[in-house]
Amino acid sequence: MNVLIVYAHPNPHSFNAAMRDVAVDALTEAGNSIQVSDLYALHFKAVLDENDFKERQNPDFFNLVVEQHHAATTDTFAEDIKREIEKVQWADLIIFQFPLWWMSFPAILKGWFDRVFVNGVVVNFATHERLLTGKRVMLAFTTGGSAATYSAHGPVGDVNVLLAYITRGIFGTVGLDVIPPFIAFGAPSLSSEQRHEVLQRYRQRLLAL
Amino acid sequence: MNVLIVYAHPNPHSFNAAMRDVAVDALTEAGNSIQVSDLYALHFKAVLDENDFKERQNPDFFNLVVEQHHAATTDTFAEDIKREIEKVQWADLIIFQFPLWWMSFPAILKGWFDRVFVNGVVVNFATHERLLTGKRVMLAFTTGGSAATYSAHGPVGDVNVLLAYITRGIFGTVGLDVIPPFIAFGAPSLSSEQRHEVLQRYRQRLLAL
Repeated sequence: MNVLIVYAHPNPHSFNAAMRDVAVDALTEAGNSIQVSDLYALHFKAVLDENDFKERQNPDFFNLVVEQHHAATTDTFAEDIKREIEKVQWADLIIFQFPLWWMSFPAILKGWFDRVFVNGVVVNFATHERLLTGKRVMLAFTTGGSAATYSAHGPVGDVNVLLAYITRGIFGTVGLDVIPPFIAFGAPSLSSEQRHEVLQRYRQRLLAL
Repeated sequence: MNVLIVYAHPNPHSFNAAMRDVAVDALTEAGNSIQVSDLYALHFKAVLDENDFKERQNPDFFNLVVEQHHAATTDTFAEDIKREIEKVQWADLIIFQFPLWWMSFPAILKGWFDRVFVNGVVVNFATHERLLTGKRVMLAFTTGGSAATYSAHGPVGDVNVLLAYITRGIFGTVGLDVIPPFIAFGAPSLSSEQRHEVLQRYRQRLLAL
């Protein structure tokens, strides 16, 4: 299968980078084709604005849903968006690899969703057609806090409930089939043995996909 | 009281801009002091990276929690972060005004949280001290979808449940007292009468704070 890994971390030697490398190795070994979008390395533009559109349906008033639909119809997205859309369309499985910052994606990855997951490409907001149906998705992320912090009785509650806004709100809306996340809790506090063990577990999860 | 409005929308003539203006007018009228951070107008840097820190505790390995704590202790954050931190510390009430994109903040506003809501300033991750205790916060946002879309029986469920990752996960963690959000559902489809009515309702909500 074709696998797109969308990876966002400011430190190229981080544990997230190690997880990305394990995924590339394991999935290649299993005979899959891989593409990686390394958003920090690409200096990916995080902020959606009028420059995302090479021509405008309405140059006088910027309505983003209108312009996204127009760009999808006329193939006039900015080149960086176009490249990411092509990768999404190519992929059978998309893995998002990132550190959980404030219960969410780093801004550069949030911007990827704002700019690439657009009306007319991943969903049709007028007809509610879910255009990524048949593809799969998995979140792979690290947390600063421990597993207890993110459990049902922890201060912020069960992380899977907390992240329903992503799994149900984003992925469900576009028709993606959600694979349970792989979470490396308390990443900054792990010993090298523990890191090794987590990476081994991640490798097994990926080989079983 | 002192009110900080953090505002993010790419179109200066959007309904979000109108809501921001209503807030500035109503709250000024009621005798409050207001500051607005207009993130698009400021070209606010969305992406957290090593340039956020004027000096480094560990120049060899970038660990953001370590560097944020160091910068908070030594007052060495980049100037744009410093300015926003000062506004947060000045404020008794913070209002976030934005369009809901993918159940979340636009990336430029997510980046504001990544870069400004930092360890040692809004929370101490080591001691769990919640450093914004005593301040209040309110979300004010527009949605593309209707109120039904965001109701308990809608496709993505109750918006207040969906946004617990913000209200509980972010605001709870830093000690902010959460005021119920003001939501303008289906903003793009509102007639001018309806827009006027929504802005009037928003004005009343603000005057009652």
